Amino acid sequence: MVGRMSTPRPTFLSGIQPSGRPHLGNYFGAIRQHVDSLNEPGDHFFFIADYHALTTIRDAASLRTNVRDIAATYFALGMDPARASFFRQSDVPEVTEISWLLATCTGMGLLERAHSYKDKIANGIKPSVGLFTYPVLMAADILAYDSTVVPVGKDQVQHVEMTQDMATHFNTRFGEVFVRPEARLPVRDDMAKVPGLDGQKMSKSYGNDVWLFESGKPLKKAIGRISTDSREPSEPKNPDELVLVDFLKLFLGDEELQDWRARILAGGESAPGYGHLKVRLAEAMDEHFAAPRAKYEELMGDPAELDRMLLKGAEKARERAVKVLDRARMACGLR
Amino acid sequence: MVGRMSTPRPTFLSGIQPSGRPHLGNYFGAIRQHVDSLNEPGDHFFFIADYHALTTIRDAASLRTNVRDIAATYFALGMDPARASFFRQSDVPEVTEISWLLATCTGMGLLERAHSYKDKIANGIKPSVGLFTYPVLMAADILAYDSTVVPVGKDQVQHVEMTQDMATHFNTRFGEVFVRPEARLPVRDDMAKVPGLDGQKMSKSYGNDVWLFESGKPLKKAIGRISTDSREPSEPKNPDELVLVDFLKLFLGDEELQDWRARILAGGESAPGYGHLKVRLAEAMDEHFAAPRAKYEELMGDPAELDRMLLKGAEKARERAVKVLDRARMACGLR
Repeated sequence: MVGRMSTPRPTFLSGIQPSGRPHLGNYFGAIRQHVDSLNEPGDHFFFIADYHALTTIRDAASLRTNVRDIAATYFALGMDPARASFFRQSDVPEVTEISWLLATCTGMGLLERAHSYKDKIANGIKPSVGLFTYPVLMAADILAYDSTVVPVGKDQVQHVEMTQDMATHFNTRFGEVFVRPEARLPVRDDMAKVPGLDGQKMSKSYGNDVWLFESGKPLKKAIGRISTDSREPSEPKNPDELVLVDFLKLFLGDEELQDWRARILAGGESAPGYGHLKVRLAEAMDEHFAAPRAKYEELMGDPAELDRMLLKGAEKARERAVKVLDRARMACGLR
Repeated sequence: MVGRMSTPRPTFLSGIQPSGRPHLGNYFGAIRQHVDSLNEPGDHFFFIADYHALTTIRDAASLRTNVRDIAATYFALGMDPARASFFRQSDVPEVTEISWLLATCTGMGLLERAHSYKDKIANGIKPSVGLFTYPVLMAADILAYDSTVVPVGKDQVQHVEMTQDMATHFNTRFGEVFVRPEARLPVRDDMAKVPGLDGQKMSKSYGNDVWLFESGKPLKKAIGRISTDSREPSEPKNPDELVLVDFLKLFLGDEELQDWRARILAGGESAPGYGHLKVRLAEAMDEHFAAPRAKYEELMGDPAELDRMLLKGAEKARERAVKVLDRARMACGLR
């Protein structure tokens, strides 16, 4: 009885879009949490969504570069291959087969109600079949590893709910094959705290982003673009209204940060100018990412090693996906 | 120059629905042509569409039985594994992956215009995503083997045209990966000549069909159901208006057939009664299929051997599909 009542070991699954070099917002909003999450007991699966990326990326070179970039970035920032399966979606092609099996049990209405699809249509995007059936492949990604917990942002909750529905439809027809996953929303909302260079939310599409491994001159140049105003350094200011201070918060220790805040608030002779703060920010950020940046550059210079790491990650994932797929095939009468 | 100008060896592809025990209409309308087609020089691929069947079949046992049945039937009727790859669709799961790649390049409009989908909607069938994306999987089935010729009925021509469109979309975006297939319509229209027991076209859904391997008492009973009328045997009749004669045409030699026709036409004492003709038909049909029926029964009694034959067929098919898939993956930037 005790055995049956114990909670099973959870399986966490997260997907990562290979949408170019990750910026600071990606780091503080997602990558750091992903790396930290490895401390939670359970099995951890992370996949780079390269199949999904094909719905938007139109050339092979960009896709390859983006995938390599995101992989090297994660490994450099502490994604530990010994504690997590970190892999390319397309290295577990079983998900496309599971996707077909789910599609035969999924009503059109379910997909037609997907927010993300409706939004894209509303934005005038000419939809491809892949864009429409995207949630089925996403469901297959989740169900392929018997995932129990899917950490997502608010806008992705519907996809997990759709996955639950598809699993239920299949299980109702063919027996208990798929494990029902649950969405988990972030406890902290760090993402909102990373501003773009212009003070708006950092986003590639706004052009207000900084690559997290930017350094040296390009970094100084980027930081130089952070919005300031024409007030004199000596004029007392509310530090919490300065975008620049929001950036400093990300990299400075508490003591140093409080010191700067006090001097900005007081004004006068010891108050720093914006230029001065920008130099300090560039320096702090450069230093913060120095070690991972070196690791990143090492991995980018050794594609074979990077590939080996990804394939190693795919191995465990694929092993599990094959088992789940076998269960599904048996249940619906395929060999 | 001569080498470059020679026509490449064609590759033929046909899909077979595992929709229960094939009836006489299936035999004379498709199976016989499939077997005969092996005489045409080229590579021949035939797949049992078990993935597709999942859009309609709802239980594992039926799917398994139907697949086994259709395979044993074809092998018994002369489908030669040495001259053709005859296999289960799901033994080449690469098609589901190719299907996803095509889906990302295929506009929704293309699928929305599919006749078969519109017909199903019009018939009040609640559509599943699988039913909607069916043509994409079908395109993957065709393109996976570099098929050049796809023998189809008139109602299937649009599917080949859609396949051409999908191949073009993908090739335009990513380079020349997929070979453009051509549809080939049947030269003879034998299908129309096989009536059902009631004189309408033979079809499972009309309940007027006879299993092609039916024999003994059940066969006599089935043939007893062939539509006749209350005219006396001695009354002269036009033999071409008799359903029974249409059946006899399928199994009797020319000489015997002409003799019966003449006697029916003449009427009088030597004219046969319907019952008499039915006895002769049962006997002729029983004999016609005696050897393949024995082979069929042997195969149905040896599932392991049947499986071995199907896997053997899948081997060559899969080898080719893997090559095509590799080309596609390389072209669009997957590993």
